[in-house]
Amino acid sequence: MEELVGLREGSSGNPVTLQELWGPCPRIRRRIGGGLEWLKQKLFRVGEDWYFLATLGVLMALISYTMSFTVGRVVRAHKWLYREIGDSHLLRYLSWTVYPMALVSFSSGFSQSITPFSGGSGIPELKTILSGVVLEDYLDIKNFGAKVVGLTCTLASGSTIFLGKVGPFVHLCVMIAAYLGRVRTKTIGESENKSKQNEMLVAAAAVGVATVFAAPFSGVLFSIEVMSSHFSVWDYWRGFFAATCGAFMFRLLAVFNSEQETITSLFKTSFRVDVPFDLPEIFFFVALGAICGVLSCAYLFCQRNFLIFVKTNPLTSKLLATSKPLYSALAALVLASITYPPGVGRFMASRHLDTLFDNNSWALITRNSSPPWPAEPDPQNLWFEWYHPRFTIFGTLAFFLVMKFWMLILATTIPMPAGYFMPIFIFGAAVGRLIGEALSVAFPEGIVAGGVTNPIMPGGYALAGAAAFSGAVTHTVSTALLAFELTGQIVHALPVLMAVLAANAIAQSCQPSFYDGTIIVKKLPYLPWIRGRKISSHRVIVEHFMNCSITTLAKDMPLEEVVKVITSTDKAEYPLEESTESQILVGTVRRAHLLQALQAEPPSWAPGHQVHYLQDILAGGCPMEPVTLQLSPETSLHEAHNLFELLNLQSLFVTSRGRAVGTVSWVELKKAISNVTNPPAPK
Amino acid sequence: MEELVGLREGSSGNPVTLQELWGPCPRIRRRIGGGLEWLKQKLFRVGEDWYFLATLGVLMALISYTMSFTVGRVVRAHKWLYREIGDSHLLRYLSWTVYPMALVSFSSGFSQSITPFSGGSGIPELKTILSGVVLEDYLDIKNFGAKVVGLTCTLASGSTIFLGKVGPFVHLCVMIAAYLGRVRTKTIGESENKSKQNEMLVAAAAVGVATVFAAPFSGVLFSIEVMSSHFSVWDYWRGFFAATCGAFMFRLLAVFNSEQETITSLFKTSFRVDVPFDLPEIFFFVALGAICGVLSCAYLFCQRNFLIFVKTNPLTSKLLATSKPLYSALAALVLASITYPPGVGRFMASRHLDTLFDNNSWALITRNSSPPWPAEPDPQNLWFEWYHPRFTIFGTLAFFLVMKFWMLILATTIPMPAGYFMPIFIFGAAVGRLIGEALSVAFPEGIVAGGVTNPIMPGGYALAGAAAFSGAVTHTVSTALLAFELTGQIVHALPVLMAVLAANAIAQSCQPSFYDGTIIVKKLPYLPWIRGRKISSHRVIVEHFMNCSITTLAKDMPLEEVVKVITSTDKAEYPLEESTESQILVGTVRRAHLLQALQAEPPSWAPGHQVHYLQDILAGGCPMEPVTLQLSPETSLHEAHNLFELLNLQSLFVTSRGRAVGTVSWVELKKAISNVTNPPAPK
Repeated sequence: MEELVGLREGSSGNPVTLQELWGPCPRIRRRIGGGLEWLKQKLFRVGEDWYFLATLGVLMALISYTMSFTVGRVVRAHKWLYREIGDSHLLRYLSWTVYPMALVSFSSGFSQSITPFSGGSGIPELKTILSGVVLEDYLDIKNFGAKVVGLTCTLASGSTIFLGKVGPFVHLCVMIAAYLGRVRTKTIGESENKSKQNEMLVAAAAVGVATVFAAPFSGVLFSIEVMSSHFSVWDYWRGFFAATCGAFMFRLLAVFNSEQETITSLFKTSFRVDVPFDLPEIFFFVALGAICGVLSCAYLFCQRNFLIFVKTNPLTSKLLATSKPLYSALAALVLASITYPPGVGRFMASRHLDTLFDNNSWALITRNSSPPWPAEPDPQNLWFEWYHPRFTIFGTLAFFLVMKFWMLILATTIPMPAGYFMPIFIFGAAVGRLIGEALSVAFPEGIVAGGVTNPIMPGGYALAGAAAFSGAVTHTVSTALLAFELTGQIVHALPVLMAVLAANAIAQSCQPSFYDGTIIVKKLPYLPWIRGRKISSHRVIVEHFMNCSITTLAKDMPLEEVVKVITSTDKAEYPLEESTESQILVGTVRRAHLLQALQAEPPSWAPGHQVHYLQDILAGGCPMEPVTLQLSPETSLHEAHNLFELLNLQSLFVTSRGRAVGTVSWVELKKAISNVTNPPAPK
Repeated sequence: MEELVGLREGSSGNPVTLQELWGPCPRIRRRIGGGLEWLKQKLFRVGEDWYFLATLGVLMALISYTMSFTVGRVVRAHKWLYREIGDSHLLRYLSWTVYPMALVSFSSGFSQSITPFSGGSGIPELKTILSGVVLEDYLDIKNFGAKVVGLTCTLASGSTIFLGKVGPFVHLCVMIAAYLGRVRTKTIGESENKSKQNEMLVAAAAVGVATVFAAPFSGVLFSIEVMSSHFSVWDYWRGFFAATCGAFMFRLLAVFNSEQETITSLFKTSFRVDVPFDLPEIFFFVALGAICGVLSCAYLFCQRNFLIFVKTNPLTSKLLATSKPLYSALAALVLASITYPPGVGRFMASRHLDTLFDNNSWALITRNSSPPWPAEPDPQNLWFEWYHPRFTIFGTLAFFLVMKFWMLILATTIPMPAGYFMPIFIFGAAVGRLIGEALSVAFPEGIVAGGVTNPIMPGGYALAGAAAFSGAVTHTVSTALLAFELTGQIVHALPVLMAVLAANAIAQSCQPSFYDGTIIVKKLPYLPWIRGRKISSHRVIVEHFMNCSITTLAKDMPLEEVVKVITSTDKAEYPLEESTESQILVGTVRRAHLLQALQAEPPSWAPGHQVHYLQDILAGGCPMEPVTLQLSPETSLHEAHNLFELLNLQSLFVTSRGRAVGTVSWVELKKAISNVTNPPAPK
């Protein structure tokens, strides 16, 4: 009997049905069932967020791959058209130029007609969003279609326009994450949580980078460096997870589509592993980094000023305001005319990144043999793409650099969805290649170190140049890691990292980054950094820069006065004081709630009604929110800045002995920081 | 005349000496001089911190290299002794065991005699220091010598004890950084700055990891993941800079010492680049990750409990309390006896990490040929080290794993400076190798995918296993990157990352990390995490858990009462209220300052003296410090936790309507978090 009771209750105390009792091994079966139940619970407890991130990664990989596939087809169609159109120069020229013009003007026209935000890379806007500023509608899902179609057209115009897809893709990814987050919140019915949302957006940005380059490590690190000034290790893990899902899916699709045999890097290299570079070459790598740093300053300066010029010049600004597609088409015409292959374009058409990472020295190969100018690019000899009998490798590389410099700047002014990272990366690779080839000619036998000589590999310099230049332009270090992930070799770890650091040292001390520059030009709200040793930021205190003109409500205020205050100002919330006399801050009231409560109340002059003061309304159900964090007038600028940056705050109240004496928002902080950095001239 | 005036004033307005005027090209020379001056100023303005970091990197590399060099010599001497001592078994056994016993007992005795903190890895203590807790003397420079000598002895006992150097090296590096920081503060005369100091310590931790592995990327990322829960991008750049200097110097020394031809990775591999693995193998990699995750849970569980057992068992705890060297010697005797080569040790002596990453399948090589048991290790055939005719590769690998599992746990209890990362890394590599070899036997032709078959490379699995196991034990993801930096190849990026994520998913949901476990066992103060979706932490508010029993002083308190309060409590600082009646918080007073002021004042009962109240003392010059940040009783646990974590706070005052109503420190927070995570059982 006791046995039966034991069975009936089971180890988990569940009652046992008769059927279970008669089946074979009821105990074991029950235990297995219990174990599965536990596992299910465990998975769902840990899960949810992780499922969300995995979905995001896979979804973005699908979009990225579909986009690449479509773009590939359109580009192939353009090539076919150009080849088949006959020998008439006019027809060929038209087929070469009209195609990208049509695509670009459609791209800018279509995306601008749906939403005015869709131009550019989107990373500067995301940066301000992640720093806590609310940009209305920027992450709305309705922008998604505009951005996808626009970006596809941009990419389909190919090497003529020479723009990439990282920036818009990050924006797309964040949009989807925000949308999925809203859907989830609605289905679960859980209250919206700001910090939770931000975590997801940071992870989404990582997915964006990772699915474009299939590079999870650098995807996460690059997005952290570009987007935020602080990050939590927890976010970093989530980013890794989502980025890995995305990158895996992206590469998997390539394998399933028989483009590749297995999941490897995008631009495989085959550098010597045993002695990839001789020790004295480290010096050249650092010098290359410095050169890239100086070039990046020049690029950033010209780019920013040209952008301002285009915005202020009467002709172009009018064109941009009234007919964006026309401006885009004109810019595309200029770019396409220059890349027209029978013209100047023969020196610069269809340059691929992987050719630049070739580990043979083209200068040495072509120096003695002087091979003929190839009619068609030969997949075996990568250098043919860059070779010209009269100008040599150096001529074509230098010409490429000079032309691309201004062409890139012109292309960035076109108001359409486009990424600016990849062209910069390729530009840097060309700089590195040029210097590498020069070194291989200067030291044809290699640099003697310890008896054994190894020829110089210009490909390594191209790698370092790409990482250093793109790192300097974006003010990031993780481009070094990106270079390794893209090529699958990490033998140049130290020299490339040193080049990137040298380039960053120069660029960061002279120019704002590409994204910060755009933020400045677009006049987006942002919080500047307080750089390292600005010790004076510890001496400036909140009292010096806070906004003292605050409109407060007091609990014992007559309702007429409250109405007067509300109608004369339009803040979203008002600080609430205990009484007009004591001025002790007790909380905040939202304007919306207050309006609702006031409208619900019959007017106070109605006969027989008691409500005369604000506290009556509050007692009647108008919600009051607590102030969870307060500054003192003595808080230093440094501390306040840290708080705002770390917690992504919008504004804080300053209280002195319990009284609200002012507020601080990023506007005041920004002003105070610029005063510390560039003290106003004494009058 | 005007020309002369122009010359005299110069463009910079400086007067010109006659000598300058007569030299060639005075203007140009002056301009060059001005340019140089500008550059110098620029370098020093940007500099300082960077020079500090570079010095730190170079210094640590020198120490690391010197240590490696010494250790190498001592190990070689031991080998020589063992070889030359003759054929007597007793003598050989003694020479094998006494050597490490002496080293280990000296290591623990010497380091413990100088400072009791020097045992273990030091990373758990650093973690608590960086979270804002002050551990007195832990970073004192006097511990430096003890730790260096102790660590050298530990490493010199070689493969017998099988411990690494990462942890203590990070501790050394942080010690030096703290010392250099104090020296700098003294010479410059600048006031101590807490946040500045912390920045340096974080960078120093990165240098520590980077100079041991010569791996700057993973050095920075690993130290971030292990040390902190939040990180600023600015610190991350500094870390990269310092780590690069350190890693460069470390590898440079190896080149100068003719050990290597150039600066490359420590354990070079030569995996196939074109098709490093077939797509279906991804599944095996993830499975390997899961296995490593489960194993790491077992390891962490056993290790923590054995540590507790050793501390609570009467015999061992007495031994550890009274004679640490004896305990160490006994443990070393056990370990050395097992690794004695003519005994069981023949299956496990002198295993090197690079052999495990060999890209040939040993099982396939040895399956058919059955080569004889080698007398001496052959540098050409790496697998000979792991081969035994009777037990095959699988037998030796499995035996190695089983034995090392408990030997490692035993070794971690020895109270001497030692790192526990490298042995775990090697253990993981062996796990991966075992599974890789099994797969290569199961699929001798490779896994068919798309017509072409490629043999399985067990080395890739060893790499994934090392990264996954060490990642799971330390709860980090960047071990994957470390594996790539150590081997110089990144072709396995995705599978290794997926294995590491799988291992981490299991380990993080079941066990605290190795370092957190040590923190728990050593009862160090720390702030636990609030994991992802613990949404309830938003609902718990400060009021529920704050410490309400605060001792306050009021300005209108009579001095007798102040003296009474001070003598009855011993807090470092007291909150100061406006008056006993209003209780409005106005600032804090330090006990030390108060004591000084009280002693300086003549007693209030002296005739003709006016001082009766605290406010008189304050007016007389006793400094009062402002409260720069206050919590409200309504602040949520989540917010408070974030604040403490982000700003490394010690304690905060809670004010309600200006009145101090309580304090929150990490003790209260920890209790509140544990209540949220494991709600107390209802009674």
